[in-house]
Amino acid sequence: MRTTGNVSAATLRRALRAYARVVGEEWVLANDTDRDAYQDAYALGEGREHRPAAAVAPQSLEELQAIVRIANEFRLPLWPVARGKNLGYGGAAPLLAGSVVVDLGRMKRIIEVDEKSGHCLLEPGVGFIDLHDHLREHDIRLWMSVPGNGWGSVVGNALERGIGYTPYGDHTARICGMEVLLPTGELIRTGMGAMQGSRGWQRYPYGYGPAWDQMFVQSNFGIVTKLGLWLMPEPECTMSVRVNLPQPDDIGWAIDELAELRRRNVIEHNFVFGNYLHDAAVYAQRSEWYQGPGSIPDEVSRRIIERFGIGWWSFRLALFGYTEAVAAHARVVRRALEPHLKKELEFDTWHRGEPLEKSAAPRPNVLALQIVNWFGGRGGHISFSPVMPPDGALALEQFHRMKARFEQFGLDYYTSFTMGQRHINNVNLILYNRDDAAMVDNARALFRTLVADARERGYGEYRAHLDFMQDVANTYDFNGHALDKLNARVKDLLDPHGILAPGKNGIWPRAYRGDAT
Amino acid sequence: MRTTGNVSAATLRRALRAYARVVGEEWVLANDTDRDAYQDAYALGEGREHRPAAAVAPQSLEELQAIVRIANEFRLPLWPVARGKNLGYGGAAPLLAGSVVVDLGRMKRIIEVDEKSGHCLLEPGVGFIDLHDHLREHDIRLWMSVPGNGWGSVVGNALERGIGYTPYGDHTARICGMEVLLPTGELIRTGMGAMQGSRGWQRYPYGYGPAWDQMFVQSNFGIVTKLGLWLMPEPECTMSVRVNLPQPDDIGWAIDELAELRRRNVIEHNFVFGNYLHDAAVYAQRSEWYQGPGSIPDEVSRRIIERFGIGWWSFRLALFGYTEAVAAHARVVRRALEPHLKKELEFDTWHRGEPLEKSAAPRPNVLALQIVNWFGGRGGHISFSPVMPPDGALALEQFHRMKARFEQFGLDYYTSFTMGQRHINNVNLILYNRDDAAMVDNARALFRTLVADARERGYGEYRAHLDFMQDVANTYDFNGHALDKLNARVKDLLDPHGILAPGKNGIWPRAYRGDAT
Repeated sequence: MRTTGNVSAATLRRALRAYARVVGEEWVLANDTDRDAYQDAYALGEGREHRPAAAVAPQSLEELQAIVRIANEFRLPLWPVARGKNLGYGGAAPLLAGSVVVDLGRMKRIIEVDEKSGHCLLEPGVGFIDLHDHLREHDIRLWMSVPGNGWGSVVGNALERGIGYTPYGDHTARICGMEVLLPTGELIRTGMGAMQGSRGWQRYPYGYGPAWDQMFVQSNFGIVTKLGLWLMPEPECTMSVRVNLPQPDDIGWAIDELAELRRRNVIEHNFVFGNYLHDAAVYAQRSEWYQGPGSIPDEVSRRIIERFGIGWWSFRLALFGYTEAVAAHARVVRRALEPHLKKELEFDTWHRGEPLEKSAAPRPNVLALQIVNWFGGRGGHISFSPVMPPDGALALEQFHRMKARFEQFGLDYYTSFTMGQRHINNVNLILYNRDDAAMVDNARALFRTLVADARERGYGEYRAHLDFMQDVANTYDFNGHALDKLNARVKDLLDPHGILAPGKNGIWPRAYRGDAT
Repeated sequence: MRTTGNVSAATLRRALRAYARVVGEEWVLANDTDRDAYQDAYALGEGREHRPAAAVAPQSLEELQAIVRIANEFRLPLWPVARGKNLGYGGAAPLLAGSVVVDLGRMKRIIEVDEKSGHCLLEPGVGFIDLHDHLREHDIRLWMSVPGNGWGSVVGNALERGIGYTPYGDHTARICGMEVLLPTGELIRTGMGAMQGSRGWQRYPYGYGPAWDQMFVQSNFGIVTKLGLWLMPEPECTMSVRVNLPQPDDIGWAIDELAELRRRNVIEHNFVFGNYLHDAAVYAQRSEWYQGPGSIPDEVSRRIIERFGIGWWSFRLALFGYTEAVAAHARVVRRALEPHLKKELEFDTWHRGEPLEKSAAPRPNVLALQIVNWFGGRGGHISFSPVMPPDGALALEQFHRMKARFEQFGLDYYTSFTMGQRHINNVNLILYNRDDAAMVDNARALFRTLVADARERGYGEYRAHLDFMQDVANTYDFNGHALDKLNARVKDLLDPHGILAPGKNGIWPRAYRGDAT
C-alpha cells in the first residue's frame, strides 16, 4: 500500500492553514467527520487505505489556482472530485491515503447554454439535476443524457467516461472544448478555445494541431475547470420499449440482433442489457428470497423473475427523431426481434407537446442506488467492466464463465452488457455487505480473478475502482507497458512535484514510482 | 525563413548512406528530379522554401525505426508523408527546406477488414483507391468515405482531419486505435491496443486512462504506423439530391435550414455548400469566359451559371439507411427546403442489390483536381478554411466580406461552406497560375488578410498550408499562447533532438525555437 507518508503532520497543518487563507476556514474540511464524508461509501471494508487528510472546496478558478500553488509548495497530493459521486469506482475518496480532496462542487456555474446550437459550457460542480432544472426553468428545448445515478456531476461523469441512454449518451464523445488548469499552474483552453474570443470552442471539437480533450479524461494531467458538452435538440417524437427475455441463453441471439441495430444506428444510444438482478435488486432485498449460504440458487432466481414479471434478461430501447423516421425504425426493430420473441413489441410513443413524462427524455434520479441494500448491512458494490466485441457467441460464453465465477466465490451474479456501436461493455456489479468481512474478502478475490480472466481473452477494462486501478493498468502491457511509460513521462513533465492525483489509472509521478521507471 | 541550414552537406551525405543501408539505394531518392517530385505541385511560386533534401521510402516498421534512429544520430529533420497528396496544404513537401521526406507509400498493408464489426486496420500507404478495390474484390459490404481527391492516403487524410461525404465522413472521428512510433524510437499502441492481444483495439476508441489518438492528428509527436478506422455497413437504401440555389443571398436561409437538418442528424454527413465556381472550375477554363483584369465580373458569373445550368450555390445531400427511414427523412428535407425553393426536390433512389453506381456510395476519383487549370499555366490553389458557427446571417455576412476581399486582390472567389454538426468550415480555395508572379503575390497577400479578418471574428482555421502554418498558429493566442507552449513542452519531451516535422502546425522543437520559449 502506498501512502503520502512522506508528508508530516506539521507540514499538513501548515498547508491547511494556507488553504484556509485562500478559501476561508469553513471550506477546509479536516475533522474526522469531514474525512468520513469523503471516504468511499461503498468501500470494500473500511477504506482506510483511501482516507483523505482533508478536503478543500474552492469557489473560483482563482482559489483553485492558489490551492494548486500551495500543493506544489508543500508537495502535498491533491485529489480533485467534481461532486464525488463516482460510486462503484471509489466515490470521492483519493487513491492515496493522506491526500487532500479538492471538492469542486462549489464551482457550479452554468456558464452558457446555447439552445440554437445545442451546447453548454459548465463548471465541474454542476449536477445532472442542476442542469435539468436549468433547462426546465428557462424552457430550453435541449435534452440531457443522464447516467443511472443522477446525483453526480455532468462534467465528472464525462471525464470518467460514464454514459447515459440517449443518442448523446456517450458523454466523452460529446465533449467539445475544455479549460484546464495544469499542475504547474498554467491555464489552457483546448480546441478552438485556444483562440482568445473563439466562436468555435463548443462547436468544433478538434482545433488546430493535436487535440487535447481526451488527454484530460480519466487523467491526472490537469484539472478541468470548464467543459463544453453538446446537448440533444428536443426531438419531434420518441418511441420506447422494454423487452424481457425469459431464458438465460437468449443472450446469444439477442446480442447479435441488437449489435446489428446498434452498428447501423437504428438504435442510436448505448443501452443496458441486464440480468434479472439488475431489476430485482432495485425492488427487493435478498433476505426476502433467500438466506442460505453461497450464491442465490437458480430456482430462487426463477421465483424472483416470476414474482416481478421480469425477464432473465431485459433491456429498454428508445428511438428519437422525426415521427415518421422513428416509426420506420420501430418497424426495423420489430422485424429484427419479434421472430425470436414470438410476440409483438409494444412501444410507448410520445409526440412533442405532450407531457415530457411520457417521453424517453431522461430525468435524473437515484433509484438505481437502491441495489446496494441487496444484502442488508452497510451495502456497497464495485464494478468490473471489461470491453468485448459485440458478438452473441462471445457474450454467451462470457455470461456462463462469469456466472460460474460469481458462484465460485459465493456471490450473486449481477451483470449487464452495455451495447456500444462497435463494442460491448460488460459491467458487472459485485454487491456486498461491508459489515461481512468474509464476503468482502470474497468480493476482492473475485475481482482479481475476473481481471485475470478478462486479460487472458484480450478484454480490457475501461475504468476501475481505486482498489484495482493498478491491477487493471498492469493488464495494458503492449511492448513492455509502452503506453504507461509514455504517460509517466508526460506526467513528470506536466506535474514535476507529483501533486495531482498520483496513481490515477496507473499513472504515477516520479516521486512515487521508486526506481521502476 | 527557417531552414535546416545547420545540417552540412557532408552530414546529409552520411545520413543518406545510412538510410540506403536500411532501405536499399533505390529507395533513397536524392537527385534533382526526386526533389522536384516531393515539392508542392501547387506551391505559391516555386516553393523553394519547402524543398526537401531527399526522400526515403521504408517498406516496413523495422526500416522506419532504423530511419528514425539515424535521424536522431544526425539531427536531421524528417517529414513523414503517407502518400503526399495533401494538396492545397503543401502536398508532399516539408515545412523546412532540407528536411528528408519519409515517404510511407510503400507501407501499404490492409492488415484487417472486419466486415461484421465494420472496421479496418491500415498502414499509412493505403490509398482510397486501394481500399475501394480491396472491398470490391472481396465483396465486403462496407462503404468507405472518400474526400474530393481520391488519390490520397486513407490514413493521411484522417490524420489531417480531411473529410468525406457519408455518415462516416468526419474521418478523424472514426479513428479507433493507432500504432505510433515516437521520435525517440518507442512503439506504442493507443486505446485498447495498449493491451497485448487486445480484442477491443478497433472497437472501443478510448482505452483506459488518457486517450492519445487525437494527439497524433495534425501532429509532430509521432509517426502513425497503423490506424484503425470504422467503415459504414452497406445500407439498405440511399436517396440523394442535388440542389441549385439561383441567388447569392440564398445562402442566408439555406444555411439556417441545412444547419437544423444537420444538427438533428437528418442529414448525417458533412456536405459542401459551394458557389458556382466550385462546379464551373471543374468543367471549364477561365479564358473561355473572361480575359480581363481583376476578379471575374458578376455578369460573367451569371453567364457561366446559365450555360452550365448550375446555381449560384449548390449542394448535394444524401440519406443512408433503411428504406422507410430514408424516405421519411427525405420528406423532412422536402418540408424544410421546398417552401424556399418553390419547387419539388427530385431524389435519386437506390436499393441494395441494384448497381452501386446508382447509389450514394462514394467512389474515389480525381475529377475535383481539374480546378487548378482554371487560370491556365501551372495551376495551383491554397485553402483558407476558418471554422464558423452554422448560422445563416453570419454565413451571409462572411460571403459578402470574403467576396469583396477576393475582388480587392483581383482573384476569383471560389468558396464552399462545409456543414458540420455544430459548425461550418468555410473552405475557400485561392486559385492561381504559378507562372504569374503578380497573381501569386496577390494570393499570398489575400491569404494573410483573410487570416486577420477571421481572427478578428473569432473564427480559427482548422488546417493550413505550409506557407501559413505559423500565421495560423499565431492566432491561437488564449492566455499568451498557452496551448502552443504546452505543445512545445511535450514536443521537447517526446522529440528531444527535434527530428520529427519541426514547425508542423506551429509546434517547434527547442533547437528551432531560438530563445522564444
